[in-house]
Amino acid sequence: MLSFFTIITSINLFGQDDKNDDAFFIRSIYDKALTEGKCYDWLTHLTTKIGGRLAGSPQAAAAVEYTRQMLDTIGLDSVWLQPCLVPHWVRGDKEKVRIVNSKSMGSMNLNALALGNSVGTPKGGLTAEVIEVKSLDEVVRLGHENIKGKIVFYNRPMDPKQIRTFNAYGGAVDQRVFGASKAALFGAVAVLVRSMTTRLDDFPHTGVLVYDDKIEKIPALAISTNDSELLSNLLKKEPIQVFMESNCRKLADVQSYNVIGEIKGREFPEEIILVGGHLDSWDVGSGAHDDGAGCVHAMDVLQLLKRLSYQPKRTIRCVLFMNEENGLVGGLEYAKVSNEKNEFHLAAIESDAGGFTPRGFSCDGEDAIFTEKFKKVITWLPLLEAYDLSLSKGGSGADISPLKSQNGLLFGFRPDSQRYFDYHHTILDTIDAVNKRELELGAASITSLVYLIDKYGL
Amino acid sequence: MLSFFTIITSINLFGQDDKNDDAFFIRSIYDKALTEGKCYDWLTHLTTKIGGRLAGSPQAAAAVEYTRQMLDTIGLDSVWLQPCLVPHWVRGDKEKVRIVNSKSMGSMNLNALALGNSVGTPKGGLTAEVIEVKSLDEVVRLGHENIKGKIVFYNRPMDPKQIRTFNAYGGAVDQRVFGASKAALFGAVAVLVRSMTTRLDDFPHTGVLVYDDKIEKIPALAISTNDSELLSNLLKKEPIQVFMESNCRKLADVQSYNVIGEIKGREFPEEIILVGGHLDSWDVGSGAHDDGAGCVHAMDVLQLLKRLSYQPKRTIRCVLFMNEENGLVGGLEYAKVSNEKNEFHLAAIESDAGGFTPRGFSCDGEDAIFTEKFKKVITWLPLLEAYDLSLSKGGSGADISPLKSQNGLLFGFRPDSQRYFDYHHTILDTIDAVNKRELELGAASITSLVYLIDKYGL
Repeated sequence: MLSFFTIITSINLFGQDDKNDDAFFIRSIYDKALTEGKCYDWLTHLTTKIGGRLAGSPQAAAAVEYTRQMLDTIGLDSVWLQPCLVPHWVRGDKEKVRIVNSKSMGSMNLNALALGNSVGTPKGGLTAEVIEVKSLDEVVRLGHENIKGKIVFYNRPMDPKQIRTFNAYGGAVDQRVFGASKAALFGAVAVLVRSMTTRLDDFPHTGVLVYDDKIEKIPALAISTNDSELLSNLLKKEPIQVFMESNCRKLADVQSYNVIGEIKGREFPEEIILVGGHLDSWDVGSGAHDDGAGCVHAMDVLQLLKRLSYQPKRTIRCVLFMNEENGLVGGLEYAKVSNEKNEFHLAAIESDAGGFTPRGFSCDGEDAIFTEKFKKVITWLPLLEAYDLSLSKGGSGADISPLKSQNGLLFGFRPDSQRYFDYHHTILDTIDAVNKRELELGAASITSLVYLIDKYGL
Repeated sequence: MLSFFTIITSINLFGQDDKNDDAFFIRSIYDKALTEGKCYDWLTHLTTKIGGRLAGSPQAAAAVEYTRQMLDTIGLDSVWLQPCLVPHWVRGDKEKVRIVNSKSMGSMNLNALALGNSVGTPKGGLTAEVIEVKSLDEVVRLGHENIKGKIVFYNRPMDPKQIRTFNAYGGAVDQRVFGASKAALFGAVAVLVRSMTTRLDDFPHTGVLVYDDKIEKIPALAISTNDSELLSNLLKKEPIQVFMESNCRKLADVQSYNVIGEIKGREFPEEIILVGGHLDSWDVGSGAHDDGAGCVHAMDVLQLLKRLSYQPKRTIRCVLFMNEENGLVGGLEYAKVSNEKNEFHLAAIESDAGGFTPRGFSCDGEDAIFTEKFKKVITWLPLLEAYDLSLSKGGSGADISPLKSQNGLLFGFRPDSQRYFDYHHTILDTIDAVNKRELELGAASITSLVYLIDKYGL
């Protein structure tokens, strides 16, 4: 007969063994990722053979087909495409933005990119005086009398003092997203926006704008931070007129797809653990960090688990969402279909912050269930800290956010953020900006979290 | 009269205030570093106007003069040069390494760099058969009969499974440092070494070798990892002869200097807190991460404290050491002089792991004093964790290691290590490989640690 002492000891030993098993398996995940990870090769193909893949573009279709084929090579239980009808915005000819009347500088071209969803200028372009503002509120304060007929130039920089650059982005991006309609409300003819980066350089950053449908749509373009500084300095000295021309426009919606693959769970197949990123990117650059990295992370999670002959208790599903950048159609459609099928996502993890060295995960969920479930997650921290990973409360990812109502936990993969906005939405977001080891460590980190959720539930 | 409860409350409040003061001051350090840090501008000058600065070279002299002048602009209490006589090794003409007899490949040049301190080949070069080994021990096992007259090719890769790349480096670099003399002991005529990086590319990595003076000195060159793979594959199929030529050599020692600046302490001027890096670099590339970053970090610590009008209790001293790469003369001389003067270094912090995003500090010290002092350091962790910094036991830096016997604590600044060996000792170690924010965050991290040591002692 077992004494009380023996029972206690056994329990402790069992706990210890389990912990050792976990440490051992997570170590094997990292070993595999750093030696037989596929993410870097996949990302190289996606970025150099396919390139930028804005929703509705032929490249987006190629990316759907390529990733479907790659998922097919892994030996999953099923791989399928989920239809979604996506918007199709095209940039058209290279944008022109030019200072035309400076006494000190003469005529001078500015480095510019039309914002996503923007309407084009009238044919032949437009020329108007520029007025600089630092916020949407300032436009309201200046009102019709100062704004009417002008080009509003939004020039509030991202705050360099923020340690995490996404906070700096969050503090400035309202100008890009809502600036056009706000300016149009007071009679502006167009908008220029300082590019979203803390760096001073010559590369304009595109990104989505959202029009208020009740207000006239005016063209909106980003200019580089160096050109923003220059324009601002000129405006301190003299009135400046700018010529701009762009024939960007929206075409008819296009049939596209979310790309999905999964390994069916042995014990609780109805409990889904989703890993995902978004397959579309902007048209400039090749969407290496945003969000090719997230897609190949998610794909490599399944590849690594298969290579390790891991048989999950729960269903592990990889989803590559379409049209995150300018519509979120893929994410919304995925959640809609999932709810219709009464699916339950125990957890969803999105990687959409780049392929840099992992720093941890943020975690989100409905108030009613969050505290209890997060308590469990926190018990895994020692296993993750061994790989320099932290856990915090915070947002997850745009594509998976509609799944929150299923009462699982949502996670955002959080890599180091310092370099992200050097590349984000520019021609610089290419494979050259991605370090192979950093990318592989991301895949290993996410796989480790998936393993723990699968083994212990939430 | 104060009640017991009031006293307790007051003490708690005082503690809380102090903690708030610290959090506030550290926040102001980060704000300053990210908006008025000088480190990136200094590093840009050091790398683009001066370049690679191997000890004894004219560029090293220029770097001494430039950094002295820059320290002079900060408003320190004193700036001086500390003489040290350094070795002067020169690379000479571009090295030639060529496969000469491959049936499958014909004649083919390999990307090579002589190792630092290597002797040159005989005039006109040498040609010999290549034998591949994976370790120094394998050379011993193979012995005279297999090694004599041959070129020994050390080809054990850095282990990609190590999470921290410095561990992978530590596990492979014996081949580069000691491989030549070990091979010569068994009659080899020269040595080729696989470059020290986990990456597969075409860039050879130089670095120091150390000869055993009792053994004949034979030439040693690094070849790129791609060429190492190629050579290894050829050797599986056929005997390979390689021609190599290099006229690298040692010249007479040269007078050089450590560059030093300090702010005198108000209360305990005899307690020195040192921050440092090494000013010399290899001749290829421009020593941006190794160790220009460390130098401008150390300089910026003083600059930021001055800008913040901080008046230290203890003496804060910046030391830019000469000749870390191929002799450590500067570090040894600094410690010798310091001991002669009966100085006491309460703490010394070295930044010599690159200008990447900070991850924390490792801490070292004599056994007799370490545990007690480190306990105190650990109490500061919450203040540092707010900036994603950790503290661990571990080595510090080569230049400051001779100060250990003064019974203070030694710290190594630990930035993210994933990209370091992409650039280390190659032509790629340039300012383009440095991210401004990552570099500035390093300066802020080190300044924060200096502030805490200064305020609370050890």
